[in-house]
Amino acid sequence: MANLLIIGAGGVGSVVAHKCAQAAKYEQAFSHITLASRTRAKCDAIAQSVKKRLDADLSTAQVDADNVPELCALLRDLKPDLVCNVALPYQDLHIMDACLECGVHYVDTANYEPLDTAKFEYKWQWAYGERFREAGLTALLGSGFDPGVTNVYAAWALKHQLDEVQVLDIIDCNAGDHGQPFATNFNPEINIREVTARGRYWERGEWVETDPLSWSMTYDFPDGIGPKKCYLMYHEELESLVRNLKGIRRARFWMTFSDNYLNHLKVLGNVGMTRIDPVKFQGQDIVPIQFLAKLLPDPASLGPLTKGKTCIGDVLRGVKGGKEKTVYIYNICDHEACYAEVGSQAISYTTGVPAMIGAKMVASGLWRKPGVWNMEQMDPDPFMEDLNRYGLPWQCVEVR
Amino acid sequence: MANLLIIGAGGVGSVVAHKCAQAAKYEQAFSHITLASRTRAKCDAIAQSVKKRLDADLSTAQVDADNVPELCALLRDLKPDLVCNVALPYQDLHIMDACLECGVHYVDTANYEPLDTAKFEYKWQWAYGERFREAGLTALLGSGFDPGVTNVYAAWALKHQLDEVQVLDIIDCNAGDHGQPFATNFNPEINIREVTARGRYWERGEWVETDPLSWSMTYDFPDGIGPKKCYLMYHEELESLVRNLKGIRRARFWMTFSDNYLNHLKVLGNVGMTRIDPVKFQGQDIVPIQFLAKLLPDPASLGPLTKGKTCIGDVLRGVKGGKEKTVYIYNICDHEACYAEVGSQAISYTTGVPAMIGAKMVASGLWRKPGVWNMEQMDPDPFMEDLNRYGLPWQCVEVR
Repeated sequence: MANLLIIGAGGVGSVVAHKCAQAAKYEQAFSHITLASRTRAKCDAIAQSVKKRLDADLSTAQVDADNVPELCALLRDLKPDLVCNVALPYQDLHIMDACLECGVHYVDTANYEPLDTAKFEYKWQWAYGERFREAGLTALLGSGFDPGVTNVYAAWALKHQLDEVQVLDIIDCNAGDHGQPFATNFNPEINIREVTARGRYWERGEWVETDPLSWSMTYDFPDGIGPKKCYLMYHEELESLVRNLKGIRRARFWMTFSDNYLNHLKVLGNVGMTRIDPVKFQGQDIVPIQFLAKLLPDPASLGPLTKGKTCIGDVLRGVKGGKEKTVYIYNICDHEACYAEVGSQAISYTTGVPAMIGAKMVASGLWRKPGVWNMEQMDPDPFMEDLNRYGLPWQCVEVR
Repeated sequence: MANLLIIGAGGVGSVVAHKCAQAAKYEQAFSHITLASRTRAKCDAIAQSVKKRLDADLSTAQVDADNVPELCALLRDLKPDLVCNVALPYQDLHIMDACLECGVHYVDTANYEPLDTAKFEYKWQWAYGERFREAGLTALLGSGFDPGVTNVYAAWALKHQLDEVQVLDIIDCNAGDHGQPFATNFNPEINIREVTARGRYWERGEWVETDPLSWSMTYDFPDGIGPKKCYLMYHEELESLVRNLKGIRRARFWMTFSDNYLNHLKVLGNVGMTRIDPVKFQGQDIVPIQFLAKLLPDPASLGPLTKGKTCIGDVLRGVKGGKEKTVYIYNICDHEACYAEVGSQAISYTTGVPAMIGAKMVASGLWRKPGVWNMEQMDPDPFMEDLNRYGLPWQCVEVR
């Protein structure tokens, strides 16, 4: 039984809090749960929702995740065994520093991104490996859906379905509809920056770059979703997977976007509204994409409006018993069902549930080993079992 | 021979200055020309261009057209017979006040629009009729292309082609291409506000409103331009024409827009970037459409880039000798030819040339009569002759 501190009270933090409270209530996975963020009122609102839905208590606290001494003071006060970090990517290293200093295990969902470069890479966090190892602490990186579940799917396929994975295609489909002409499902600035970035994929030992959204395919998704256009993008789990999946020759990440979404993005790009450099206006520096974010609907407001499903999965082509074999492992998640269960739609739900399971894996000791780890470096089986138990059931089908 | 003061040194002001200098040089239409604006450097740059192209001299001056005492001081100093106002629509009344106070005739191209309402109407300027009449001064309103030439076309048709005009369709086609993904041909704020406004047309004694851009037709333009989609809009000349054209039953204004232009406008509207109400951002009031204008290409930068033609004209249906008759009167203007002649493309050219001709009509005495007048209230013949002489030749064809 572990004492857990969750840092971050956004959409994902709310799902993590609800699901950890479920795991504490039904499996005694956690002895105590505290939810902390810069704005304590947000934590209190989530704690009330947990109370109402599960009749379970969460503690709340205020903390500035950019401030290591403040984080350490909180850790010394609460004495958690484990921090589940669902704050902003900019804050990962500060929270890891505090965990090292105070002897606390660490789990997050998205890799570190320096505030000023918009460039995400694992190198900064991997560089903590030695220190976590020496401290006897576990740091589990990227325990969301993608990265996270998509990595575990690959590890599971390699354990049970294939002797070797040669080609990996991760395909992220959001077939939901929020009914707004244009809105982003999470922080618009991060969302738009991700989508307008150059694509990158792994091909026989090297990264190949593509122009933004220049390569697409149509994939026919299961469960009535049907064919959707998917665009090649770079996504962070590729970095660790091409390192850890023996024999991998090609690894790509694809995401669906509607024509309407891309049209809006293109126009906003054409007129300069997605620029991340400041423009002088009325004597002030205004960053166009930040001003745009101010005008767009608050992603949190989309929860009650979103209908439809998400389908995220891995297509893995490899060899089994000397023969070529391809499997597709995927989850279908329903926006309205998620909202009914925890008050958030599927985008937050599919990230928050795996964050809880990752925390549970470390808390239980099943995934505890000193060092800094990506998800595919752990035994996938208990994680895969919990996905079925906690709302993200998966299917594995052979593709012929 | 009249002493002329031009106020306004934007794209139209530059064309007016060049064309007035031509009229002074080749016909002695003006004895002296001064160009004034808030920024004297802009006037000086235009004067240099006039000097280079025509070897003619313009005087320049600095004036704040919102400041009536400052305007009067300039008028007393320069003693012009006539002001040609091509400043901003917000400034019309200030300049009319100064003209009344100093005994100077007045010509403009666009009707007064209060700064805070975005609502253009002639009522404010028509209310000056009594005072101009008593002062023995002529005020000529809306001497651009549309309003302006479109009004004169109607008056000319009524004088020479038709006994009565029943249906008037003014059709403004810009078939030019500036090669930019999105840009507006004049002040983007005014442009976007105009296009996103509700439509309005005159039908048997009353105004009928339409949703913005909700009514379109395809018109097959002459001179190789071919069929283009035109959208019904409200345009200011309709207000005076339905008052002054005896027997008019229906009056509409149409403008061409490309699908690309409208798509950009729709997206910008969807995300709130065309809003004219302030949004709090970084502690400041930011008006989205003004910030957008800051990001878009400067309309002046489009001059050297624009290729293709404009075609603006009136389709007039009425009766001649008891029989139904329809005529189409139009001008074709070439963006590159305009740029070669005066350094501005056709949008500024088609407004600036009629402003010069209006000034010339008043200066020569041909259109001088005390009061405030719209273009169709004057004898169209000398104006129509000058259109052919000064770069805006017209055709009149019978439509069967």
